[in-house]
Amino acid sequence: MVEEKKFENKYGYFTEDGREYVITDPKTPRPWANIISNGDYSFMVSQTGGGCSWRGNAGQNRLTRLYQDTIKDNWGKYMYIRDVESEEYWSAAWNPVQTDYDEYEVRHGIGYSVFNQKVNGIKSSMKVFVTPNDPVEILEVTVTNESDRVRKLDLTSYFEWEAGKHPDEHREFHKIFMDTEYDQDMKAVKLEKYLWGFPDKKGLANNVDWDYVGFHAVSQDVKSFDCDKETFVGMYSDEATPEGLEADKLAENQGRFGDAAAALQVDVTLEPGEEKTVVYTIGSAAKGKDEIEGVNNEPEDADKLIQEYTSVEGAKEAFKEVQEFWSELIDAEKVDTPDDALNFMTNYWLKYQAISCRLWAKSAYYQTSAGYGYRDQLQDSQIFLTSKPELARKQIIAHAEQQFQEGDVYHWWFTIGGGGPRTKCSDDLLWLPFILDAYLKETNDYTVLDEVVEFLDGGEADVYEHCKRAIEMSFSRFSPRGVPLMGHHDWNDGLSAIGPDMKGESFWVGEFLYMILESFIPLAEARDDNKFADKMKTVKENMKEAVNEYGWDGEWYLQATTDAGLKVGSKENEEGKIFLMPNIWAIMSGIADEERTETVIDSINEYLLEDYGTLLNYPAFTEPRTDIGYVTRYAPGLRENGGVYTHAATWSVWAYAAAGEGELAYEAYRRICPPNRFDNPDEYMAEPYVTPGNSDGPLSPMFGRGGWTWYTGSSQWLQRVATNWILGVRADYDGLIVDPCIPAEWDGYTMKRKFRNTTYQITVDNSVHVNQGVKEIKLDGEAIEGNKLPDLDDGEEHQVEVTLG
Amino acid sequence: MVEEKKFENKYGYFTEDGREYVITDPKTPRPWANIISNGDYSFMVSQTGGGCSWRGNAGQNRLTRLYQDTIKDNWGKYMYIRDVESEEYWSAAWNPVQTDYDEYEVRHGIGYSVFNQKVNGIKSSMKVFVTPNDPVEILEVTVTNESDRVRKLDLTSYFEWEAGKHPDEHREFHKIFMDTEYDQDMKAVKLEKYLWGFPDKKGLANNVDWDYVGFHAVSQDVKSFDCDKETFVGMYSDEATPEGLEADKLAENQGRFGDAAAALQVDVTLEPGEEKTVVYTIGSAAKGKDEIEGVNNEPEDADKLIQEYTSVEGAKEAFKEVQEFWSELIDAEKVDTPDDALNFMTNYWLKYQAISCRLWAKSAYYQTSAGYGYRDQLQDSQIFLTSKPELARKQIIAHAEQQFQEGDVYHWWFTIGGGGPRTKCSDDLLWLPFILDAYLKETNDYTVLDEVVEFLDGGEADVYEHCKRAIEMSFSRFSPRGVPLMGHHDWNDGLSAIGPDMKGESFWVGEFLYMILESFIPLAEARDDNKFADKMKTVKENMKEAVNEYGWDGEWYLQATTDAGLKVGSKENEEGKIFLMPNIWAIMSGIADEERTETVIDSINEYLLEDYGTLLNYPAFTEPRTDIGYVTRYAPGLRENGGVYTHAATWSVWAYAAAGEGELAYEAYRRICPPNRFDNPDEYMAEPYVTPGNSDGPLSPMFGRGGWTWYTGSSQWLQRVATNWILGVRADYDGLIVDPCIPAEWDGYTMKRKFRNTTYQITVDNSVHVNQGVKEIKLDGEAIEGNKLPDLDDGEEHQVEVTLG
Repeated sequence: MVEEKKFENKYGYFTEDGREYVITDPKTPRPWANIISNGDYSFMVSQTGGGCSWRGNAGQNRLTRLYQDTIKDNWGKYMYIRDVESEEYWSAAWNPVQTDYDEYEVRHGIGYSVFNQKVNGIKSSMKVFVTPNDPVEILEVTVTNESDRVRKLDLTSYFEWEAGKHPDEHREFHKIFMDTEYDQDMKAVKLEKYLWGFPDKKGLANNVDWDYVGFHAVSQDVKSFDCDKETFVGMYSDEATPEGLEADKLAENQGRFGDAAAALQVDVTLEPGEEKTVVYTIGSAAKGKDEIEGVNNEPEDADKLIQEYTSVEGAKEAFKEVQEFWSELIDAEKVDTPDDALNFMTNYWLKYQAISCRLWAKSAYYQTSAGYGYRDQLQDSQIFLTSKPELARKQIIAHAEQQFQEGDVYHWWFTIGGGGPRTKCSDDLLWLPFILDAYLKETNDYTVLDEVVEFLDGGEADVYEHCKRAIEMSFSRFSPRGVPLMGHHDWNDGLSAIGPDMKGESFWVGEFLYMILESFIPLAEARDDNKFADKMKTVKENMKEAVNEYGWDGEWYLQATTDAGLKVGSKENEEGKIFLMPNIWAIMSGIADEERTETVIDSINEYLLEDYGTLLNYPAFTEPRTDIGYVTRYAPGLRENGGVYTHAATWSVWAYAAAGEGELAYEAYRRICPPNRFDNPDEYMAEPYVTPGNSDGPLSPMFGRGGWTWYTGSSQWLQRVATNWILGVRADYDGLIVDPCIPAEWDGYTMKRKFRNTTYQITVDNSVHVNQGVKEIKLDGEAIEGNKLPDLDDGEEHQVEVTLG
Repeated sequence: MVEEKKFENKYGYFTEDGREYVITDPKTPRPWANIISNGDYSFMVSQTGGGCSWRGNAGQNRLTRLYQDTIKDNWGKYMYIRDVESEEYWSAAWNPVQTDYDEYEVRHGIGYSVFNQKVNGIKSSMKVFVTPNDPVEILEVTVTNESDRVRKLDLTSYFEWEAGKHPDEHREFHKIFMDTEYDQDMKAVKLEKYLWGFPDKKGLANNVDWDYVGFHAVSQDVKSFDCDKETFVGMYSDEATPEGLEADKLAENQGRFGDAAAALQVDVTLEPGEEKTVVYTIGSAAKGKDEIEGVNNEPEDADKLIQEYTSVEGAKEAFKEVQEFWSELIDAEKVDTPDDALNFMTNYWLKYQAISCRLWAKSAYYQTSAGYGYRDQLQDSQIFLTSKPELARKQIIAHAEQQFQEGDVYHWWFTIGGGGPRTKCSDDLLWLPFILDAYLKETNDYTVLDEVVEFLDGGEADVYEHCKRAIEMSFSRFSPRGVPLMGHHDWNDGLSAIGPDMKGESFWVGEFLYMILESFIPLAEARDDNKFADKMKTVKENMKEAVNEYGWDGEWYLQATTDAGLKVGSKENEEGKIFLMPNIWAIMSGIADEERTETVIDSINEYLLEDYGTLLNYPAFTEPRTDIGYVTRYAPGLRENGGVYTHAATWSVWAYAAAGEGELAYEAYRRICPPNRFDNPDEYMAEPYVTPGNSDGPLSPMFGRGGWTWYTGSSQWLQRVATNWILGVRADYDGLIVDPCIPAEWDGYTMKRKFRNTTYQITVDNSVHVNQGVKEIKLDGEAIEGNKLPDLDDGEEHQVEVTLG
């Protein structure tokens, strides 16, 4: 059977169903990685086999990291295959040995990666994944003898223990607290560390254990082991040519005086044609020592975890669980449109990226997160709304907890030990009511408003009150003309010097707040909080006027004014003339009337809609501006400085659709949908199956280059704007709106959509080839009024036929 | 002429005069480095050619670092030599290419290192040093054609720009603010960076430039260049096999969109026997932008610096200046004893280590300092007392500035932007009066007491008052029985959990304070500060009693009591029974009477004086103790946990000498004097020419292994105890004491000693072979009374003949 390859290029392709991306050349322009997580334990693996792992829920993953490697700007747990007779060795992934191969492919899937290789007549297939229910990652290695003689091989695993460290020159400080031990009975090596970078409950530094036992085990008898980087790698060698493989057996160092690493060597002898599977596990078991404020790990039993998973059967069972685990999270909604890129990304990869990396692992190759971002994971949690809204609810509560009584919040926070920066960022706090509204629309679960949550500085209140205080705090920071102050920055962190003296304004925050008031006023009224409702109504009216009066620049809206009163994002400026955010949100929020919407759309089309998406501003700043902020310090065209900042670019899809511009909405989507970049991988450089944080703008010599993939808030939003705004299926308080805004060329599309307790099988017929306009909807064969599906709440599946025209 | 080699082993040897250490095998057990500094600009270079550079005076050198390399756990600026015809290339030092060589040696000297090599018939000699007066390092590369045919070579330099970064995953954040440029006229590449990890004067993060222009220039026409790590090294290659050397010319990338590096390639064609020299420079010129509180760099001109030094003549002139510069700092005192190890270390290497690394560079391979340690550089500054006491005075003032009005001080501080941890460490503050006394004895310069210095929290006072407040603050933290509280820790930082509740006591602090009061009482009396003098007298008397009553354990002194009242360093303990510090300082301070001194000496001999020096405690802790502190978290035998902590071990030399134990004082010295470890380099591992911070104690499987060299407070003290306590020549308020306490075996020694405005040529005659006891001293042929040389203050040199007996 020949596999049908989609979006194929010289580096790889999507499988026909889009559930796997197959890399065929390890020398991709950048690491094309997979970020694999079960919500607690996470790891990263690149197409070369590099990677690292950490306990993900804890945030601060530098401090919870289990292992990493330091060579080649890449991390790794490595697997060596050695022909014992010829003494040749290679690796089961391309790194670290980088041997010439006869066959090589890496299959990145949802929750796993597989490295298939043929070298020296030996086929190897190494599957890596993390068990859904325990902090254990599994390396299932199958070797097949495709030569015509008996082959005596050994397999040798290797990685450096990391055990949660702060930055440290050459591991010289932290390694001296590590203790390794070989456990013959368990066929395992184990690690403890007597120092963790957190203060104890008295506030004393360097006085607690790393709260885990690290382990590395193998499913068959150990031929030899080593726990010392120095003897395995060698002081003047590296992982490509480790000294440990120059001898028959490894050095078998262990204890407290080496440079903690883990290597397990096993013999595998294969008859011609024979195949054998060896299972390795790596994991960490909490000691549950309760030595640190905020860390109350339940004790876990390393030996039990080793026994459960370190066998061929255990690994098989665990992999089945992985598949079920992810199916629950991503299969509640499925679309089938004429655009495979949209289908693959919407059905699998964007959900996976948002959940596995962004919400759970919280780190990737380019960026290591310090904790939860207040705005970030709150927005991301919308990815759960269709499949598991209870997880979105949990996220809302978690963020409400990070608020002070006055209403402001931590810009981000640590989950171990707590704490974070309390800033005068002007939008952080408002995301709570914003995301709350999406949750209410999807679930109709108003009980969340009554959930009582503590403040950081004492006292407690229900979620309604938390939201109210956020809004009130925002109200207390307006300019004399009624526009929200910029403060330390708004959504665009790089606008960091515009408003520190609390004079500069952000028109975008005005629009954002306007939109929030729209949904919060009815909540206040429903609770008879009439005084506050009235206040909000007044502010809302005034805001529309103020933004339109002071924020209008003639052909578009301004981004801001500075403390010194200068306009930012104005035709008066030579650089940063026009910013995307205040213009698309003017449309999304309804601040802009129909005429201004048209004018704004024209301006966006003229200045911002570029080949690879909508730019965040134009033209880029070419010199640092100490009165604007560090956005001006990026190279022109890079990231927030005149590049396509993908997170914001997704909202331009929403804005175009809200303006009824079906072709433009699709264009704005198509240009940032990663598989569409398959035909120029050396320019794009980034993975084709996840979103990048940014793509270079036209002033960059690498125009169109994708940057900082995986850990970006764009994944959830790109999924959401496709379903909610292009396909037009979006939740409302009293039903499910169906209002497609699609390319006229499309004949239609189908979509399976779970909404609360009901599943709708929607078929949209666009045989008349319009962009928009629902002519008729039949629900289970019966025509309904309007374009909103009722909440049938019957646990059944229903057929919906939609005709455009 | 055959060079006489001293302390030769398989890795290298000292030259006959001890001024150079020559490494003949690059695969030393650990990096055997040189730390080269001019007091402002510093760099490290290992025997493999690895290294990094930074502006040293600034402290926080992660943030002022100019370049570094990331492979092989080693840093580097690299120099490739390529045979253009054969396309073979190798490096002028062993790294990164690690080519087989016909000859290889590295000569580490005072202020320079030279890499001599012969590969493929080409001799190369690369001398690296930093100019004394400017932030410029020089690489003078001489290549000689020893083959019998014309050789067409090119030289290619390479390093990664670092430009002051915080820890950052794979340089992904910081690299995007760097900007490189090739300057054809200057034959140079330059670097700017538009972000530095400090807040601007408003407190805004990410809003200032890195305040330097980095440059790299070469003395002859550039064949090609590259400023991009990715094109030079290659995404999946490394510095050993850089892709840049696969082509005739380098890629010539520059600008803001690469991964900033520097490579300059020049052609060198050599007739048989011909020799040519190429000079490369690397440096940084301050922009002087004055954007950050506490940074007022004077603007420097990169082009001027390039022109001055980037030529064969410029380099020669600069190297002459280097030699004069260091001669001034180390040649004011010179000893000649029967012990070459003592001579080499005392005359050159310990002074060099203390000044170049510890006071100036403030970082080394194992440890990167965050700034100035309050105690650390104050003690180190004693190294200047003989040669340039004005530099010690400057250091005293600098530390007085880091004091709060209440008398306590920063445990360490940042020089850029200020700030540091204000702790309840119990000894930090007392080092100011302690070192002041050494300064007064050496210089008789009492004007320092009147120098007015600001406090950190406002106000100012003279240095006398600063010292007084330190003492008064210490007085306010006594236990009810009159012993100083441990607080957050004493000199032993790892005793971090003994006294945080301000109940636990430190007997060592009692002794230290006692010694300080001895010297401070006369200062108070001289200023008619009689009330304070009386107070000090009372405390002093009481302290002697309290330590002797509560601190005496029967055969030795206790280290401490904990907040819970447990004894630490007592025969009642199973681990940490006896600590070195309270016992040697009881002798040094005079707290112990003659009988207890004898008892204590016996106990030290029995438990602590081991093969490689005196242990800090015995036996080592084998389990973490949350009531003692992180010292118990080190592996048993490592560092402060039952190892030889060299800094403290030097004081045991003092104590033995103060007790009149000439043989033991010399033994305690000999065992930690690095050249003496030449016969077991694979066990010792560390450089033979600088002190290590520690050596493993007997519980370590690597008993005797040296660790954490160069950046250690032991260098200055090992020099001082040799001259002041073994050779017995030490300054007093009214003259220079000569009181040798030497091995009886010695026939004598000579010493040149500058004391204030006079130079004494001292010859000690021990033909009767005693340890101690001056029978007669002749000054310029005339016998004098007693054993104190008068302060002749005549600018002349005088002959001193000392006869022991």
